[in-house]
Amino acid sequence: MVAEKSPLTYKDAGVDIDAVTTALKSVGDMAKATHKDPRVLTGLGSFGALFKADFGDMKEPVLVSSTDGVGTKLMVARRMQRFHTVGADLVNHCIDDILVMGAHPLFFMDYVAAGHFEPGMVESIVSGFANACQEQGVALIGGETAEMPGLYGRGDFDLAGFIVGVVDRADVLGPERVTANDVLIGLPSTGLHTNGYSLAQKILFENAGLSPDDTLPGLEGSVGDALLATHRCYLPELGPLLKDSGLHALAHITGGGFTDNLPRVLPEGVGAVVNRDAWEVPPLFAEMARLGPVDRDEMDRTFNMGVGMILVVERSQADRVLDDLGKRGATPTLVGHLEAAERGVRYEGSREL
Amino acid sequence: MVAEKSPLTYKDAGVDIDAVTTALKSVGDMAKATHKDPRVLTGLGSFGALFKADFGDMKEPVLVSSTDGVGTKLMVARRMQRFHTVGADLVNHCIDDILVMGAHPLFFMDYVAAGHFEPGMVESIVSGFANACQEQGVALIGGETAEMPGLYGRGDFDLAGFIVGVVDRADVLGPERVTANDVLIGLPSTGLHTNGYSLAQKILFENAGLSPDDTLPGLEGSVGDALLATHRCYLPELGPLLKDSGLHALAHITGGGFTDNLPRVLPEGVGAVVNRDAWEVPPLFAEMARLGPVDRDEMDRTFNMGVGMILVVERSQADRVLDDLGKRGATPTLVGHLEAAERGVRYEGSREL
Repeated sequence: MVAEKSPLTYKDAGVDIDAVTTALKSVGDMAKATHKDPRVLTGLGSFGALFKADFGDMKEPVLVSSTDGVGTKLMVARRMQRFHTVGADLVNHCIDDILVMGAHPLFFMDYVAAGHFEPGMVESIVSGFANACQEQGVALIGGETAEMPGLYGRGDFDLAGFIVGVVDRADVLGPERVTANDVLIGLPSTGLHTNGYSLAQKILFENAGLSPDDTLPGLEGSVGDALLATHRCYLPELGPLLKDSGLHALAHITGGGFTDNLPRVLPEGVGAVVNRDAWEVPPLFAEMARLGPVDRDEMDRTFNMGVGMILVVERSQADRVLDDLGKRGATPTLVGHLEAAERGVRYEGSREL
Repeated sequence: MVAEKSPLTYKDAGVDIDAVTTALKSVGDMAKATHKDPRVLTGLGSFGALFKADFGDMKEPVLVSSTDGVGTKLMVARRMQRFHTVGADLVNHCIDDILVMGAHPLFFMDYVAAGHFEPGMVESIVSGFANACQEQGVALIGGETAEMPGLYGRGDFDLAGFIVGVVDRADVLGPERVTANDVLIGLPSTGLHTNGYSLAQKILFENAGLSPDDTLPGLEGSVGDALLATHRCYLPELGPLLKDSGLHALAHITGGGFTDNLPRVLPEGVGAVVNRDAWEVPPLFAEMARLGPVDRDEMDRTFNMGVGMILVVERSQADRVLDDLGKRGATPTLVGHLEAAERGVRYEGSREL
């Protein structure tokens, strides 16, 4: 006698649509709280998200888009089972990426994937997206949450974010405005932001044998806290400056550090000179260089070294811009200048870590 | 004597920036081939992608956005080491998701993540994005490629896509237009599209012990070929119909099948009646139901059952729309109608699989 096989369901394959649907309902409520902009046309259907293309008195509006992930910073979040901050990392990273083109953000969408969502995990991740969006006045208008057993290992997950902003064409920042006579003004980062986490974890956890709860000389909290510090959003400090004629370009110091990111805003025939002694490298970076050890040049090509955003400013306007930033509570530092040279970065100063 | 540790580099942590940079160069060339729309403002900087917000004579342009992944169809691609089709799946899925709002696509961005990229893998994946974008006249204007050892297992990878399109507000399709007097017209899918792959693999590979090279009764090629059939893009067939006043709504049959997707375009007090005998279910679905076994209702809540897109059309216009579609080479079928009833789907017909 052959036993009849009991019918298979989608849930048997590890996918529980109902559980995901419940999580998505609470997520939807969080997203709705970010829909204060009347251009968000909610309730008009559900397959795609609608945003009215009304850009006020802009003469030639240009949409500026970017997509990014959080990288292996997620592994630290998983290790610490702290999921509510990585969403903000991604929102802020995306805002900074379009800010450097001169754009103000309009809306954001998220992609969240995992092999299995523990109860509360999706809500925790999306609360990070929603809170950061609300803080910066960005509408969280859509997203995809995918539970994929087999594709991701248990406990593994990944995030991606997509942002769209707008800038008037005449206000687009970039290499076209930059001259060899400009100076470089740096704004502090909050930590590693979202770059260099593979190397950081190898140094701190694997080689030095530290745990996230340990601390290091000069560090206020734990190593884990320092590593999960939220990627700084520079919109509050830089938003009011975007139409300033003295501001020529902005470089977001992400993967590749100063070495790879500064050249992205330099025209041919213009090189950057960065004075390594101009600012104090935060303890986390100094300790990683010591523990690795990691060479000075490799550090500068991997990490932001405490400076997450660089303003390229007309030399004659530098004092005024520094003053302006200071008045808004920012702590800017003159970190270098441009020169007639091959496109690239030349380092000066004696700093060793 | 203590041996001096040799300095660590980012490459030691498993991340080879140079290798990824080389792959990205060829990817950049593929993307450029999709930039025929003069609204793509390339060469204007690199942190964010620029697209001119010029929507011709639209009275009240509305941006329509969507984000999605390919789901566990990626596991089939990995198993077959065939990476050039999943990008097209994602582009077409995203286009279909905004098409159902009445929107034409403008630009697309991709997110590609893996633990390690074998040589040629990124190029292969992105060629799928680029070819599908070119075919449908969509600009591939940006993307993020992340190599994350430790976060993804060796061989594992994931993709996400993000699309922005535009529709004139008066032309937005959806439940507001739908009445209990409408009929349902279906367009054939090419296969599973991008949904139900966890259950499909459990049935075919795990329970039935098939390999991707095996075949099944009624199937023309191998099981693997059938599973990797590219998600159909309905833009060529439906694009010319979007402003037709007889077309009230479109439902993209994705995760949740007819059962979950049809109600998304129904107003309160209107139910859908689907006649299961109206079309022939393709062999792949019938075989999965038999091999599972999987109940008829569970099949209809998981898979598209051979119908990937539903048009909700004014009853008096149905013949003309069917005729119109046929003239453009489509093979539409009347699959049901709407009625005054609770919002939901009621099935008719005797079809068993």
